[in-house]
Amino acid sequence: MKSWVESANSPATDFPLNNLPYGVFSLPGIAPHCGVAIGDYVLDVINIDHGIDPKYFNRPSWNDFMAAGPDVWSAFRARLTEMLTNPQYEESVRAHLVPRRDVQLLLPLDVTEYTDFYSSKQHATNVGTMFRGKENALPPNWLWMPIGYNGRASSVCVSGTPVQRPWGQLKREGADPEFLPCERFDIELEVGAIVGQPSSGMVSVEQADEMIFGYVLLNDWSARDIQSWEYQPLGPFQAKATATTISPWIVSKTALEPFRTASKEREIPLLKHLEEHRKMLYDIDLEVVLAPESGESTTLARTNYKELYFSAPQQLCHHTTSGCSMRVGDLLGSGTISGPEPENFGSLLEMSWGGKNPIGLNGGGTRSFLQDGDTVTLKGSAKGDGYRIGFGECVGKVVPARDALA
Amino acid sequence: MKSWVESANSPATDFPLNNLPYGVFSLPGIAPHCGVAIGDYVLDVINIDHGIDPKYFNRPSWNDFMAAGPDVWSAFRARLTEMLTNPQYEESVRAHLVPRRDVQLLLPLDVTEYTDFYSSKQHATNVGTMFRGKENALPPNWLWMPIGYNGRASSVCVSGTPVQRPWGQLKREGADPEFLPCERFDIELEVGAIVGQPSSGMVSVEQADEMIFGYVLLNDWSARDIQSWEYQPLGPFQAKATATTISPWIVSKTALEPFRTASKEREIPLLKHLEEHRKMLYDIDLEVVLAPESGESTTLARTNYKELYFSAPQQLCHHTTSGCSMRVGDLLGSGTISGPEPENFGSLLEMSWGGKNPIGLNGGGTRSFLQDGDTVTLKGSAKGDGYRIGFGECVGKVVPARDALA
Repeated sequence: MKSWVESANSPATDFPLNNLPYGVFSLPGIAPHCGVAIGDYVLDVINIDHGIDPKYFNRPSWNDFMAAGPDVWSAFRARLTEMLTNPQYEESVRAHLVPRRDVQLLLPLDVTEYTDFYSSKQHATNVGTMFRGKENALPPNWLWMPIGYNGRASSVCVSGTPVQRPWGQLKREGADPEFLPCERFDIELEVGAIVGQPSSGMVSVEQADEMIFGYVLLNDWSARDIQSWEYQPLGPFQAKATATTISPWIVSKTALEPFRTASKEREIPLLKHLEEHRKMLYDIDLEVVLAPESGESTTLARTNYKELYFSAPQQLCHHTTSGCSMRVGDLLGSGTISGPEPENFGSLLEMSWGGKNPIGLNGGGTRSFLQDGDTVTLKGSAKGDGYRIGFGECVGKVVPARDALA
Repeated sequence: MKSWVESANSPATDFPLNNLPYGVFSLPGIAPHCGVAIGDYVLDVINIDHGIDPKYFNRPSWNDFMAAGPDVWSAFRARLTEMLTNPQYEESVRAHLVPRRDVQLLLPLDVTEYTDFYSSKQHATNVGTMFRGKENALPPNWLWMPIGYNGRASSVCVSGTPVQRPWGQLKREGADPEFLPCERFDIELEVGAIVGQPSSGMVSVEQADEMIFGYVLLNDWSARDIQSWEYQPLGPFQAKATATTISPWIVSKTALEPFRTASKEREIPLLKHLEEHRKMLYDIDLEVVLAPESGESTTLARTNYKELYFSAPQQLCHHTTSGCSMRVGDLLGSGTISGPEPENFGSLLEMSWGGKNPIGLNGGGTRSFLQDGDTVTLKGSAKGDGYRIGFGECVGKVVPARDALA
């Protein structure tokens, strides 16, 4: 099916007709509100006749639309698809297409709470080996449930937001801890699932899948030196609170439907409540690109969302086991997605093996951890036959640490 | 200074003229909105002439009032004090006093995010000894910074809300984990600090103190068996997500001012940014009372807020070191407040020493952990000369676990 928006039919676009991801944009003099990406444009959905109450869109987040529920989600998508396909709508709708290069993109949702999981076995094994040694690499509970921790929602920012190197307590070998700018600042390549419907009480894996509205790319910036000193016994805290960058577009579950794929074979049988009865992961190619302040870009790693051992619906189910209520706008990070080989690892910590094997960059230079001025870009897309479902880029540039407090 | 509200002058009230704590109440047919406790009454502050914009109060949370800032906080308090003291206001104001026994009290704030600390040395030592052995009881980082983790804001509920025993993964000695109702359900006696002003970037301990609006009692219900299996390596998660009960009244920092007290002597010097330059703790007597379904109440423990090693301003300062933004309505739990002796311990885990020494109850029976039907009440007050500043009670009754999912 082709759109009358020509750029949406190009195999090179992230935003073909069968993507229609959800973002929030602003233009000079126009208050931020909801828009949908199509080809090279943002479709301003406030004033077109799609039959859905404009109150959902005339505000700077998709939360109210999400809360309206799956029937509204489907009706809206079906109607937009019709309007962007049938030439009879071209004249009226074209006036509401804004070139994407002209807009500023903002956070697409109000993040209610943010939880970060740890569901790539390769990542957990790598980090565990470095932090606790080979014998204790994978914690005994890891294969039994999706291990996660509550993150800080106020840290979530949209792609393009500069990321300031944090200060924190660092403990150097044999010395007392000191309060210094982070020396081992890192990224984590993740995909975030967005909860679009609330729950009270426990939900099944199937119900959890129905509650998910869509997915974003997510970079969980991590201060490894702060983390290693603070994380015992209550988990990561300030090491993960500086920034969490997400892509500006929420790709709907519907757009990803053709790319559903099964989880890996279980190494031990799961407890019944965590079993999946359908495919719950997606075949999404992911990559990390680093560009120094002045210099060539280097693709540091390529991996795939299907490398996860636990899916977002399994994570969400586990999240509710205790009776924990979930709310519209909750964001669940997948955990760093590392594949089997070093070129598939989703963090510098793993790629450089804790700084022991610095990574060579195109055009010279190496990196163990991030330097000021480095720009990190996460990319992701599901590849169909002649098209791809993209997320837009998830970008952040590291800026120098603030001056010390007087 | 006396109020014309007679019951506010009784030495037995939690709510004398110099308390004026902030709550949210509802009455049949009246939408929930803000009120202030005075003696046996709730003062409905929407329609009295205190000179502060009623928009702050005509809604079911104090967040907008908090956001208005310390000058508005002071002006409001000064004006209420005047109106409740000077007999010329009695006639007009009395019509807006609602007997406290007639109202339903609701959560006094929208909890934006919830962080729980671990700042009682006795508690950290007790739990550490049980979970990791005597040698590894106090983690190496503990004396250096206020260790904490992000909790789940959606779990926070107001006093009186029933608390349903959670399900979770339990790992019995030598067996595979099973999915079962919690067998070691516990309480944690804490005081919560409420962030009333936002920050971006790091704040000093002094600035943090200024950002705090007030304090509540807080019971951090804890599933010990779920916790011990899940908490490594990323910290407590579902074990702490069932419920977190807070008292219905936020006691302002101003009301607590006469009870400021210094922190304990440091065992090692703090890093400069965490040093306190004035008294940051408060002398607040605390107790835990347990009442079985049918039977006598037993006071299980008495302790004091000043037992903490790190104050709320130190916790809040540490929370911002990484650049983490704080927002109006953030709630910081102190951590379980345990004093030196078993009768001062703030959790059943500690009182029963992991179930090894069951606690005798008045009227017979024992408890190691909570049974269905048990009601737990936290009480707290700062004692002045002929008056006390109370929080109201923080109550929760344990109801049986839900049936298993089909």
